[in-house]
Amino acid sequence: MRAVIQESFGGPEVLEVVELEKPELLSGEVLVRVKASAVHPVDVAVRSGAFPLLGQPPFGVGWDISGVVEAVGPGARYEVGEEVFGMPFFPRAAAGYAEYVATPSRQVARKPKSLSHVEAAALPLAALTAWQGLVDKAGVKEGDRVLIHRAAGGVGHLAVQIAKAKGAYVIALASAGKHEYVKGLGADEVIDYRATDFTEVVRDVDIVFDSVADGARSLSVLKPGGVLVTILEHPSSELEQTVKEAGRRFAGVSVEPDYWALEQIAELVDAGQLRPTVAETLPLEEVGKAHEIVASGRTVGKVVLTVE
Amino acid sequence: MRAVIQESFGGPEVLEVVELEKPELLSGEVLVRVKASAVHPVDVAVRSGAFPLLGQPPFGVGWDISGVVEAVGPGARYEVGEEVFGMPFFPRAAAGYAEYVATPSRQVARKPKSLSHVEAAALPLAALTAWQGLVDKAGVKEGDRVLIHRAAGGVGHLAVQIAKAKGAYVIALASAGKHEYVKGLGADEVIDYRATDFTEVVRDVDIVFDSVADGARSLSVLKPGGVLVTILEHPSSELEQTVKEAGRRFAGVSVEPDYWALEQIAELVDAGQLRPTVAETLPLEEVGKAHEIVASGRTVGKVVLTVE
Repeated sequence: MRAVIQESFGGPEVLEVVELEKPELLSGEVLVRVKASAVHPVDVAVRSGAFPLLGQPPFGVGWDISGVVEAVGPGARYEVGEEVFGMPFFPRAAAGYAEYVATPSRQVARKPKSLSHVEAAALPLAALTAWQGLVDKAGVKEGDRVLIHRAAGGVGHLAVQIAKAKGAYVIALASAGKHEYVKGLGADEVIDYRATDFTEVVRDVDIVFDSVADGARSLSVLKPGGVLVTILEHPSSELEQTVKEAGRRFAGVSVEPDYWALEQIAELVDAGQLRPTVAETLPLEEVGKAHEIVASGRTVGKVVLTVE
Repeated sequence: MRAVIQESFGGPEVLEVVELEKPELLSGEVLVRVKASAVHPVDVAVRSGAFPLLGQPPFGVGWDISGVVEAVGPGARYEVGEEVFGMPFFPRAAAGYAEYVATPSRQVARKPKSLSHVEAAALPLAALTAWQGLVDKAGVKEGDRVLIHRAAGGVGHLAVQIAKAKGAYVIALASAGKHEYVKGLGADEVIDYRATDFTEVVRDVDIVFDSVADGARSLSVLKPGGVLVTILEHPSSELEQTVKEAGRRFAGVSVEPDYWALEQIAELVDAGQLRPTVAETLPLEEVGKAHEIVASGRTVGKVVLTVE
């Protein structure tokens, strides 16, 4: 099978498309013929060595996949031919930029029927991050006032929709050029964080979803008992202490595989309440270019590789 | 920390208690101070090399643990001091017979409050096998007639209780000496499979839970549309074909980590509907003896190591 690996840390040029053996299946695993694989900022950080999750190369990066079950190991879920999506093994062994991935069957879920493989591949890592923060940790509920930083971002645009689907009132921070887009996602208010200091106009918030390390200012708009959700890899323990001393809750999130949450996410999608934005689609062979685009941070929506 | 490893395949004597570094935490992982670790037939098979799940030694076996969260990696679930149980990484990297285990936080769940660590450690692998077979795959529901082979076994005794908790009518197969025990678990009928051919006295069954490779005879008692659940590692594909041609469903199960099912299991436990039987408790240092006991197959209930 074709797969992308790298022999060393470095720029996009270290990514090579090579020919490998198909992965072997263990009990409880399915072999997925990958149709699409999303590229994330974390992939770029792991590739370059900035975030040494996988130890030393050689390894392959990429976790988010959507594809078709081609073989079913003993006792696994799903049937041959079913369409599934997920982020198997994150944050350990990766290798999702490949024609085939072997995954524990409970690290993937059935693909939402209303999405293409390209759209479905854009969901798991980002949507689970939003879900595990807003739903699992913060327990977002009807009527909650939720402030979302970087609301047009890869995680933010899904966080807005998940919060809305749960009945929350969403206050979104985004640059002026993205206001129409963010309103289209369902945000109730959109604030241009460059023009306006949100701490002066927002108050009584139940949950802040912070992806930008703006903890101290976020804390200032939280109600007593409110929750500061942060998806930063290394949140400051000093901030955590400050939040607790102020009588607010602190919730760090590091996304994990979770078929059960993926099933809930797929239901929201098929109910028309959640849809990922795909900025650009490139073939597997242009993986280096895909990494350049993601590293630039200039796209609205996810960058997805197609695997023909 | 103390941990059990083996340098080669072999008898119980290959198991050595050694001093190792504590495992390092990745994002989303918790470090569990293990209080108890169950020993399973699968552990014995992997240790001996009969079931080469983990490749070549050196490695440590053991998956089922219960313990206390000692450290929380970035973004993981749970707080320091919470009690959790699970079977992290099964069927891949193991090493559960140890003072500390690092696990993705969504591969463990909160320990049932009404159980000791020893009892909780006896649950995950066996209870998830029963749950994933009866609930996930077969969809057991109120009024279903369920036949359970080896009802006094490590998985069987939990399968009986889970089926009863879901409102099923349970017909249990067990040797005569274990009938009182199995009735005490809630079985509606108990049949001594040595004295009576169950195919002559049982019919119209919705689900057979087969842990003994008695597929053809089990098939003969199933209703049209009924489900044959098998937890055997390598079920016969010929049997699967026969079951399907007969208009019944075939469901192989290979257990997988699953915090969501563990949470449901913990609820049943705390509601008084499910309780594991522990046959014997030994200290970690007597791991070889524990393997001998499990290999003998003569205990009723699980064998559990305590880690002081």
